[in-house]
Amino acid sequence: MKNQTKAQLNQLLLALVQHDTRQVDDIYDDVQTIDLAEQIEELEDNQLEYLCSHIDDIKLAEILEESEEELQVDIINCLDNRRILALFNHIPKDTIVDILGQLPIGKTKQLISLMKAGEKKIIEQLLGYEEDTAGGIMTTEYIALNENLTIEESIKKIKQIAPKTEVIDTIFVLDQYKHLIGIADLRDILIGEDSTPLHTIMDTNIITVLPETDQEEVSLLVSKYDLTTIPVVNKNNSLIGIITVDDIIDVIVEEHTEDLLQLHGVHKEESLDSSLIDSIKMRLPWLVVNLGTAFLASFVVKMFEGTIEQIVALSATMTIVTGMGGNAGSQTLSILIRGIALGEITLKESLPGLKKEILVGAFNGLVTGFLTAVIVYFIYGNIYLGVIICLAMIGNLVISALFGYLIPLVLKSLNLDPAIASSIFLTTATDVLGFFIFLQLANMFLPYLL
Amino acid sequence: MKNQTKAQLNQLLLALVQHDTRQVDDIYDDVQTIDLAEQIEELEDNQLEYLCSHIDDIKLAEILEESEEELQVDIINCLDNRRILALFNHIPKDTIVDILGQLPIGKTKQLISLMKAGEKKIIEQLLGYEEDTAGGIMTTEYIALNENLTIEESIKKIKQIAPKTEVIDTIFVLDQYKHLIGIADLRDILIGEDSTPLHTIMDTNIITVLPETDQEEVSLLVSKYDLTTIPVVNKNNSLIGIITVDDIIDVIVEEHTEDLLQLHGVHKEESLDSSLIDSIKMRLPWLVVNLGTAFLASFVVKMFEGTIEQIVALSATMTIVTGMGGNAGSQTLSILIRGIALGEITLKESLPGLKKEILVGAFNGLVTGFLTAVIVYFIYGNIYLGVIICLAMIGNLVISALFGYLIPLVLKSLNLDPAIASSIFLTTATDVLGFFIFLQLANMFLPYLL
Repeated sequence: MKNQTKAQLNQLLLALVQHDTRQVDDIYDDVQTIDLAEQIEELEDNQLEYLCSHIDDIKLAEILEESEEELQVDIINCLDNRRILALFNHIPKDTIVDILGQLPIGKTKQLISLMKAGEKKIIEQLLGYEEDTAGGIMTTEYIALNENLTIEESIKKIKQIAPKTEVIDTIFVLDQYKHLIGIADLRDILIGEDSTPLHTIMDTNIITVLPETDQEEVSLLVSKYDLTTIPVVNKNNSLIGIITVDDIIDVIVEEHTEDLLQLHGVHKEESLDSSLIDSIKMRLPWLVVNLGTAFLASFVVKMFEGTIEQIVALSATMTIVTGMGGNAGSQTLSILIRGIALGEITLKESLPGLKKEILVGAFNGLVTGFLTAVIVYFIYGNIYLGVIICLAMIGNLVISALFGYLIPLVLKSLNLDPAIASSIFLTTATDVLGFFIFLQLANMFLPYLL
Repeated sequence: MKNQTKAQLNQLLLALVQHDTRQVDDIYDDVQTIDLAEQIEELEDNQLEYLCSHIDDIKLAEILEESEEELQVDIINCLDNRRILALFNHIPKDTIVDILGQLPIGKTKQLISLMKAGEKKIIEQLLGYEEDTAGGIMTTEYIALNENLTIEESIKKIKQIAPKTEVIDTIFVLDQYKHLIGIADLRDILIGEDSTPLHTIMDTNIITVLPETDQEEVSLLVSKYDLTTIPVVNKNNSLIGIITVDDIIDVIVEEHTEDLLQLHGVHKEESLDSSLIDSIKMRLPWLVVNLGTAFLASFVVKMFEGTIEQIVALSATMTIVTGMGGNAGSQTLSILIRGIALGEITLKESLPGLKKEILVGAFNGLVTGFLTAVIVYFIYGNIYLGVIICLAMIGNLVISALFGYLIPLVLKSLNLDPAIASSIFLTTATDVLGFFIFLQLANMFLPYLL
């Protein structure tokens, strides 16, 4: 597939050199633009410049739209302002805003100042919203019609607007004050009677979001209610944009990636493509923090060096207690992080769930602790060491349940990402307290262990 | 919101008791069906029965469609076969198949035997596909038209079929042998000239999947190419179904949840709602496996008890090496699992990335190892202990990079979920080898440490 697209890109360049427009069209129609964009990333600077200056506006606009951020900047740098604005005519407003966001501020201002008044206003408004809010991902290409239009008039309008809109199957219905009062399904419009007014076939029970709504919350609504588009309204209920499902999919993938990476102390921007230097820069700080917590645990062990000196078996067995605590806590942690991401739980409603987790921890601690005790007894021949390890295991698994459950909820209630640094807090708790409980018990029962 | 819907459900029941159809309609129009379904879950059995027997087919079909699996079964159990089949007329085929999949086999067979021949064939075919493949999530409610229809004829057909279809903005174009040869955008059809044949405005460059394609692969295609629907064709390129974007969102959320949970040894079916017993059943087996690996690490420490007995400081410092290895390895692991989930890497293309990870591990090991050495020197006043811990840290972070990188890739190449049990393999490696390297080095340099 990749090699095929690469060959097609070469053919495309050749056809451009030969000014064979028909051949260019044929090749272009045969590839997916996003695959083409991926191959264009590999071009030399002068090849990219040649491509940009010789391919027509519509094709280059499509390529620009489907490109990764880096290539978008490279393409923009190949073009003069007049051409950039010409391309923007073929690109949805939300993508234009994304592109402008990557350019130097001076360049962005320059481009905006050259736009027509109406477009300028929309773009400036969109640029004002935070990147990860509904306003930051919405677009303004939609069909909104007055409630009093008849079906016949509506269809006429739809035909006019349709080519310039991202969504066609949902028509937004406005009253005379431009308030959003309903949505009409294109199916119902197509089969409706010519003279029926639009408001009689619209659905008034609609889900909307405000521009400041967090994008994760928007994605939960779309996912829960199986929406293909969600309208964004201001406080007066005036329609100011829509969010399409393809952008929602991007949000979901992005948020999930962040959860998984941040949970394990990886910067959310890191990926397989990150350079060696970037990977080190992004991971080392977290490891240094971890080192601090590892020393905390180490100090706890050091406190009991006298005890360990007398019963060296403790040093081999203590790691079982802390290892199990970390693992059991990760189980709770991941259940919670998913629950929070899916909007299923908040700190306020957390008490019954916490009780359950603690019971799970206590029971699993009892079972694994008992197993450990039996094995330890066979190895070291000391029943008391077994009893101590079993008690420590129960204690540490209860602790792991408590921290695994509360850490993400507390982070969330502080408006932080529940995944971020969760596992560092958790393992600190289970290591420090796990070593402490076990070695303290050993210390108390020292005469029986000798 | 919840309380409001609860009140509305009570009003709805009251209106049903009073046979006030108009009031029933008004209340029903005012709620989102999925919110209503959530509240219906809380009803007593006799209330549910009353609701089912008194509400009309279309509404009950919608409720059934939006319900969680458990409620779907409860609703079906309230109805006789005739009524169930009546409801099925208003439900997409993919949802019918999902519902049938939860019923006892006898009941499913009975219902299928009562269906009309055409429907029976489709349902039996859909039931034949694995749940997590394209065939298992596709539906048969789409609009497919012959390439030679004119725009005028097409619009006429679309109006006829539209009310029964899930997707309307994409029209699938077939040749005379029913092969899928293109897709037409409803926008282009609406603005096309009456006499134009459909094939002249269709896009022939389409992305299709086979019914056996894994659902995760389908979701990657939808996400990459920003599709709102993807056609499923058989080996002869005949269209047999379509997958809609709302089902794709469900797949993405499901797969991400699985990744996060399985990575930490939680069964993919577990959630915050799981009962105490279920949670224990699902987590305990994994903890027992973990216990086995914890003992492995413990045995390694036991091997060196003689050394630890002479230098008890080793027992407090050895956990720093293993803890850091586990954390650094988790970083690599999560980057890899995301990369694999996003289709960015395979075992074959893994070598350059592996080199980078090992370099990151070595460098981060050097920095954190050096820091540790300095601190350990200040605490224990022994420079050799510091040197040993620094070397062990470098070694263990290289090991963690190696295992964190290769474990998910090897699992994936064995056709297993790359997340499953990844962290257990990883921590086993970093604990066992981390303890071994550090204590072995300590053993070798014993005279300098005393």
